[in-house]
Amino acid sequence: MPVNYATPAAHQLFPVAGVRLGTAEAEIRKKNRRDLTLVALDPGCTVAGVFTQNRFCAAPVQLCRDHLAGGKGIRALVINTGIANAGTGEPGMLAARETCAAVGALLGIEAEQVLPFSTGVILEPLPVDRLKGGLPAAQADLKADNWHAAAHAIMTTDTVAKAASRIVAVNGKKVVISGISKGAGMIRPNMATMLGFVATDAGIAQPLLDNLVREAADASFNCITVDGDTSTNDSFVMIASGQSGARFEAGSDAGWDEVKAAIIAVAVELAQAIVRDGEGATKFITVAVEGGQDSSECRKVGYAIGHSPLVKTAFFASDPNLGRILAAIGYAGIADLDVGSVKVWLDDVLVAEAGGRAASYREEDGARVMKQAEIMVRVDLGRGNAAAKVYTCDFSYDYVKINADYRS
Amino acid sequence: MPVNYATPAAHQLFPVAGVRLGTAEAEIRKKNRRDLTLVALDPGCTVAGVFTQNRFCAAPVQLCRDHLAGGKGIRALVINTGIANAGTGEPGMLAARETCAAVGALLGIEAEQVLPFSTGVILEPLPVDRLKGGLPAAQADLKADNWHAAAHAIMTTDTVAKAASRIVAVNGKKVVISGISKGAGMIRPNMATMLGFVATDAGIAQPLLDNLVREAADASFNCITVDGDTSTNDSFVMIASGQSGARFEAGSDAGWDEVKAAIIAVAVELAQAIVRDGEGATKFITVAVEGGQDSSECRKVGYAIGHSPLVKTAFFASDPNLGRILAAIGYAGIADLDVGSVKVWLDDVLVAEAGGRAASYREEDGARVMKQAEIMVRVDLGRGNAAAKVYTCDFSYDYVKINADYRS
Repeated sequence: MPVNYATPAAHQLFPVAGVRLGTAEAEIRKKNRRDLTLVALDPGCTVAGVFTQNRFCAAPVQLCRDHLAGGKGIRALVINTGIANAGTGEPGMLAARETCAAVGALLGIEAEQVLPFSTGVILEPLPVDRLKGGLPAAQADLKADNWHAAAHAIMTTDTVAKAASRIVAVNGKKVVISGISKGAGMIRPNMATMLGFVATDAGIAQPLLDNLVREAADASFNCITVDGDTSTNDSFVMIASGQSGARFEAGSDAGWDEVKAAIIAVAVELAQAIVRDGEGATKFITVAVEGGQDSSECRKVGYAIGHSPLVKTAFFASDPNLGRILAAIGYAGIADLDVGSVKVWLDDVLVAEAGGRAASYREEDGARVMKQAEIMVRVDLGRGNAAAKVYTCDFSYDYVKINADYRS
Repeated sequence: MPVNYATPAAHQLFPVAGVRLGTAEAEIRKKNRRDLTLVALDPGCTVAGVFTQNRFCAAPVQLCRDHLAGGKGIRALVINTGIANAGTGEPGMLAARETCAAVGALLGIEAEQVLPFSTGVILEPLPVDRLKGGLPAAQADLKADNWHAAAHAIMTTDTVAKAASRIVAVNGKKVVISGISKGAGMIRPNMATMLGFVATDAGIAQPLLDNLVREAADASFNCITVDGDTSTNDSFVMIASGQSGARFEAGSDAGWDEVKAAIIAVAVELAQAIVRDGEGATKFITVAVEGGQDSSECRKVGYAIGHSPLVKTAFFASDPNLGRILAAIGYAGIADLDVGSVKVWLDDVLVAEAGGRAASYREEDGARVMKQAEIMVRVDLGRGNAAAKVYTCDFSYDYVKINADYRS
């Protein structure tokens, strides 16, 4: 059960003019499930993406980078679940290329105009013939209001489909933003076993979109952690079709701030949904670190807390075990941290200051906060003005169960 | 149940002349258990230690550093379990000082000649009056053949007492080495919720002992990880009484290599015992990384594998999920790693090469190795001659259970 998250209904996911989606059953790894998604883009879209930093990055990730850099204009995305096509060596690259070629032939575009994405089990070969066999059905299914179906078709261990949508009015025009994401484990910064796709019918010049996709990732998908594992396949892609008529060339353009804020809000919602549906999660935790000398050290502290199995099991147990939080702050890697200046709150409850438990702290106040489904851990490092947030979940029996059983 | 580990019997733990140990029930946190250990050292011992890098280091750790630096000669150690006296601010420092003063008064030595150690729950105040109340009984119990009782008295969540002992003959003299350790969770490099004490009746000059304690820690306690959490209280202390008559001033002295090797072997045995008794552990895993450009990058890869909850749950499930191991190698932080040169073995089974699964690999071979209680993951990075080892355990339901229940 995800923490305070339900998939938006199909009619709340607004179609984005210029973007059509279709899904099909290709039996990539299992029968009787939609595991193949095709996204067709009208000519004139700008597309930008950020990808995993894992050196064992998957074959499709390498092709995505190549095709985006190639500058031929992206006209389609193809996404399969079941098999990640990672750690598959040269045969994996050939399978990814063959996938793009097949999509290109089907849609009458070049293979280099296709971005491929795979998610699922690592090291297993991609059954490219079955994937190709499913493409015509996915093509036949292409339509603009298929976001809901696509959100379902990209799931792996996710228990709910993840999607978000916004409409903003700018410069007298209506701009639509819709997105989907997937991922539940192997989640950490830079980035996760996660796929995220956000499309808008605003027109966004390529340099502006390139910056936006990085800024949005830093505020969303790069702020989440479930288990500290960075996957081989993480990808976050933005598409701007321009068909709303609203067009942005520069950050100073009128209306850009509103559109940008709405796009980032969709990315944050999609990223948080991954944590809310984290494998075995029973609680959603925001770690807000402030008072740092720079945002990098704030993130270090946020991730030390967010990754600590001891902290996460204490959250699972609703145990206000503040010592584990302080210990994580202490080993986060700030060599000259003065622990006497550090303050820690659980929601509104000051729990630690001056190197130890706050004099005003009462265990029952901490216990009250820890019982909540959503908890804010706020840390003031007391040495500057920088801040950063990390979103995470607790660590339960079910995390072990899910990951001990995943392949069986 | 620890993995392939049983506490040596009392008679296999050899007394170290010049070192006497006594234990008592002080009701630090619970009744009816020996939770206080006193170690009395004859005059003339050299003592050296290494301590946690955690910025929230506990009050006793700060005092240990001060007293070792003070140069008055250490004459006693006092160790309590139940309460860690960490995150306790100025009152915690006062409690640790009061403990040392009480031991000093009892033994007729200065407070600055006492090293205090605490382990247990963080952020709770140390009941220093109860601790002091237990000291006379511990003093009355002091004797040279009490290593077994001391190994038991320093336990917290440990399921077995951890101890090791060796006798080596050098230069016509018999040198005894005995040690004890504790710790089961919050274990990671630099260092763990772990206490380790090793004593020898060899005489070792202070500079030589200072180097040895670091070298031994790097080969033992700094190579282990259970959950990636570095505690506030980690301490590893070596004592050299000199009463065997064998004395070493410099690394070039005859017999030193043998004594040093035996001392390091005891430290490694004590450190590995902590992993074998890791919270919820069902398997003992050695991650041996070779072919690196330096030992630092080998350790990075070793720890990425050893810390990954996905890898550790796969070991728990006896699932040869090689993809998770490759993913961990890929995100370990070697920016220019050529994954095509990496090779991975599970024991003698080559499982990955050339960026993917080895052609010769058969799933049943991997499955056979994964069922074992002891597993070697060997990684060749293919870019140099450096190597490093990390010892870890798997990640089970019981880890979550133990840590969700610890305070209750």
